[in-house]
Amino acid sequence: MPYYIAGEVPRLEDLMVVTPEEFETKRGIKVNINHRVEAIDPAAKKVKVTNLTSGQSREESYDRLVIATGAEPIIPHRVDPGTDGVFVLQDLNDAEAIKRTVDKRRIDEGLIVGGGYIGLEMAECLTRAGVKVTLIVRGPRLMSRLEPELSADILDQLTGQGVRVIPEVKVSGIRPIAGERLEVTLTDDTRHTFGLVLVAVGVAPRSELAAGAGLELGVRGAIKVDRHGRTSAPGIWAGGDCAEAWHRLTEDNAWIPLALTANKMGRVIGDNLAGIDALFPGMLGTSVTKVFDLTVARTGLDAAECAARGIEVSPVKVVAPSKPHYYPGGGPIKTIMHIDRADGRVWGVQMVGVDGVAQRIDTWVAALSAGMTLDQVADLDLAYAPPFATTWGAVAVSAEVAAKKIGSGK
Amino acid sequence: MPYYIAGEVPRLEDLMVVTPEEFETKRGIKVNINHRVEAIDPAAKKVKVTNLTSGQSREESYDRLVIATGAEPIIPHRVDPGTDGVFVLQDLNDAEAIKRTVDKRRIDEGLIVGGGYIGLEMAECLTRAGVKVTLIVRGPRLMSRLEPELSADILDQLTGQGVRVIPEVKVSGIRPIAGERLEVTLTDDTRHTFGLVLVAVGVAPRSELAAGAGLELGVRGAIKVDRHGRTSAPGIWAGGDCAEAWHRLTEDNAWIPLALTANKMGRVIGDNLAGIDALFPGMLGTSVTKVFDLTVARTGLDAAECAARGIEVSPVKVVAPSKPHYYPGGGPIKTIMHIDRADGRVWGVQMVGVDGVAQRIDTWVAALSAGMTLDQVADLDLAYAPPFATTWGAVAVSAEVAAKKIGSGK
Repeated sequence: MPYYIAGEVPRLEDLMVVTPEEFETKRGIKVNINHRVEAIDPAAKKVKVTNLTSGQSREESYDRLVIATGAEPIIPHRVDPGTDGVFVLQDLNDAEAIKRTVDKRRIDEGLIVGGGYIGLEMAECLTRAGVKVTLIVRGPRLMSRLEPELSADILDQLTGQGVRVIPEVKVSGIRPIAGERLEVTLTDDTRHTFGLVLVAVGVAPRSELAAGAGLELGVRGAIKVDRHGRTSAPGIWAGGDCAEAWHRLTEDNAWIPLALTANKMGRVIGDNLAGIDALFPGMLGTSVTKVFDLTVARTGLDAAECAARGIEVSPVKVVAPSKPHYYPGGGPIKTIMHIDRADGRVWGVQMVGVDGVAQRIDTWVAALSAGMTLDQVADLDLAYAPPFATTWGAVAVSAEVAAKKIGSGK
Repeated sequence: MPYYIAGEVPRLEDLMVVTPEEFETKRGIKVNINHRVEAIDPAAKKVKVTNLTSGQSREESYDRLVIATGAEPIIPHRVDPGTDGVFVLQDLNDAEAIKRTVDKRRIDEGLIVGGGYIGLEMAECLTRAGVKVTLIVRGPRLMSRLEPELSADILDQLTGQGVRVIPEVKVSGIRPIAGERLEVTLTDDTRHTFGLVLVAVGVAPRSELAAGAGLELGVRGAIKVDRHGRTSAPGIWAGGDCAEAWHRLTEDNAWIPLALTANKMGRVIGDNLAGIDALFPGMLGTSVTKVFDLTVARTGLDAAECAARGIEVSPVKVVAPSKPHYYPGGGPIKTIMHIDRADGRVWGVQMVGVDGVAQRIDTWVAALSAGMTLDQVADLDLAYAPPFATTWGAVAVSAEVAAKKIGSGK
C-alpha cells in the first residue's frame, strides 16, 4: 500500500489478490462481506453474525471454524482516529483515503507517528509523493528491535533524504485548525502543523472474539494455537496475525505478525480441515524493509528476544562489500550476528546496506534453518562474479570474521 | 577483465589484489617474477628455475613445494595465437592488449570463438565498447552445460542485444589482410572480416610440470590432490585451476576451475604448510554470469555430471516472479532443478532471469550444502517485501512446485 500511495503501484486493484466475486465464482466459496461475527458459542458450534449493511443479526452453525481476524492498529491514548486527516494504514480503504487526501488537499507536510516498518516505508513513500515528512518515535531509536548501530544507519538515511526525525516524544494532542489542517502538540511541548497524520505505532492481535468465546490466549494476547493451527476449543482453528505461530529456532510459540507466516498458517489449517495432517514448519521472524536507498533485513532472534529466553549472546558486527571495490554500484553490507556465548550458535542476523541485502538474508535463513555453524556458513561455495559479489561473498566473509572474533575460527 | 575492456572498471591496477612489491615489503615473501620452473625433482627436493629476463637457469631446493600453475586457454588447431589481432583473455596483459587494440584501431567488428562464460561476458563488454560482435560455438548451444531451454534464453538475450551467434561451426582459418584486419574462414565455408578475434573455447589445467615430475594426474588431467591439497609426491602440494578439488555433493574430486575454489584451496594449503590440519570444505561448482540484462547462475551437478555418475535425475522447470506483479523492476526467474528419481534429492539448480538471480542461487547453495529436501526449501521463512520478493519468494515457490511435480509434495 505505501507503494500505491507513492504512485509506484498504479492501481489499488493491483494489490487485490482475489475479489469476493472470484472467491464465489472460481472457487465456490461464499464470502459474506460487511458482516461481523459478534460471538462464538463453541459448545453449540454456532456463531452470531450481524449483516452490517442491513443491521440484521442471525445465527449460523458450523462444523469447523477458522478465526482469521488479523491484527489491528494500536491507537495512542491522545489520538482520536476519527479526526479528519488522521489515518492508520490497515487496509485498502485506508490506502485509498490517504492517497486521495495527499492528492486532493495537496498535502505539503505530514506527521508519521511510529518508527517501525510501516512508518519507515510510509516516510519514503510520502516523501516520493511530495510530502515533507516529520516522523516521531516514542523511544530513542527507529526499528527498536534492531541493534542501535543499525537504527542509527536508518536515522542517517532518513535525515539524508529530508525526513525530520524526532525521537523520544509522543503526541499529546491533535486539533483540527483552519484550512483542513491539524495542530499537533507533542510531549516535549512543541506545537506543529500538518496536513496529515499517520499513526503507525504497531499492531495488536484481534483476539477479543476468541477470548469472549473462552478460547485460551497466548503470547501478547494472540490466540493460542498448536502447530496444526488448533485453538484450545475443539473444532476451532486460528491463524494469521490474530494467532501465535511456532518459531523454528526457539521451538516455541511467538507472535510476530508477518505475511508469509499468515499465508503458511492458512495453508496448514486448510490442509487440516481437509483431513491432511499438516504441521506448520515454523518461522524465523524474517523481514526486510526498504528505507529509501537502504535495505534493512533480519532473521532469527534479536537481542531482546534472546535476553527474554535467557540466551546469552554477543552481537558481532562485520562490514563486507557487496561487490568488488572496482565494480560500480556496490556498497558495504553491515551484518550483526547474535552469537550464543555458550556454544557459538547463531540465533539471529541483522543486515543493513544499499546493495544486495534482501536476498543475502535468505542465505542466512537457510543456514539458520539448517542449524549451520559459523564455520559452515563461511565454507559455503557462494556465487561469485564481479557484477554481483566478491570472491567469498559477504555472507561467508561475515561468518568467517565473526567466527574468528568469537574464537571459534579454524 | 571484461569490465575493464568495457570501460566500467577504470584502471587495470584496480584489478590487482597484491603487487609483487607488496608481497615482499608487507608480507616478507620474496616473489620471483619472470621466472619459469623447468622441472621438479621430488626425490632431491629441488627445482630447476630459469630467469626469463637474464636467460640464466639455476637450481633451488625446497622443504615444501606448492604448485599453483593455474589453467591455460585452449587454442583450437586452426588458430595461431601469435597472429596480430588474435587474443585470449588469460591475464592482465591480455586485457590491456585487447583494450588497447579496441581503442586504438577503433575496432568495429569482432569475433568471439566460444560460448562459455568468458565468451559471453566478453560479448557484452565488447558490445559496450562499441564493437559489433559475432560469436561462434562448436556445439548447438551456448553454455553447453546448461539445460537447452536456458541456453536458448541466453541466445535470445544475445541476439536481442545485437550479437550475431553462429552455432555448430569452428574456425578453419585466420589470415591477416590489409588494414590490420583478419579474414576468418569458418567450417561452414563462409568467410568473414574482423578487426579482432578472441579465442575463449575453454581452459585446461597447467599440469605438465607436475606430470613431468611423476606426480599423479586426476580428472581431466588436473593434478591429483587430497582434501589437504597434498599431491602424490611427499612434500608437494597443489591447488587452484591446475589441480582437482573435492566436490561437496559427490564427495569425490572434480575439476571445475573457479575463483573461490582456488582461493579456498590456497588457504587450506597455507594452513597445512603452517602445521594446521586444514581440510578443504568442498565446492559445489557454483557460478554466476551476467549476460547483458540476463543473469545465469548454477550450483551443484548438471545433467551431464549426473549422467556420468549414474545418477538418474529429472530436470524440473519452474518459473516464478522475482517480485510481486504490481511492483516495478521485477521479472520471471526460470529455475531448473535436477532431481534424483530415486529419492527426490536435489543434485543441481540452474537459474536464469533479469532480476534477483545472483543471490537467490546462494540460498540454494546453503540448502544443497545442508542436504535439504525440496519440502524443506519450500518451508524456508524467506524475506518478503514488495520491492524485493513475493510473499513466499521465488526459491521456495520453485521448490514447492517441483516437489508437487515429482509427487513428493505434502
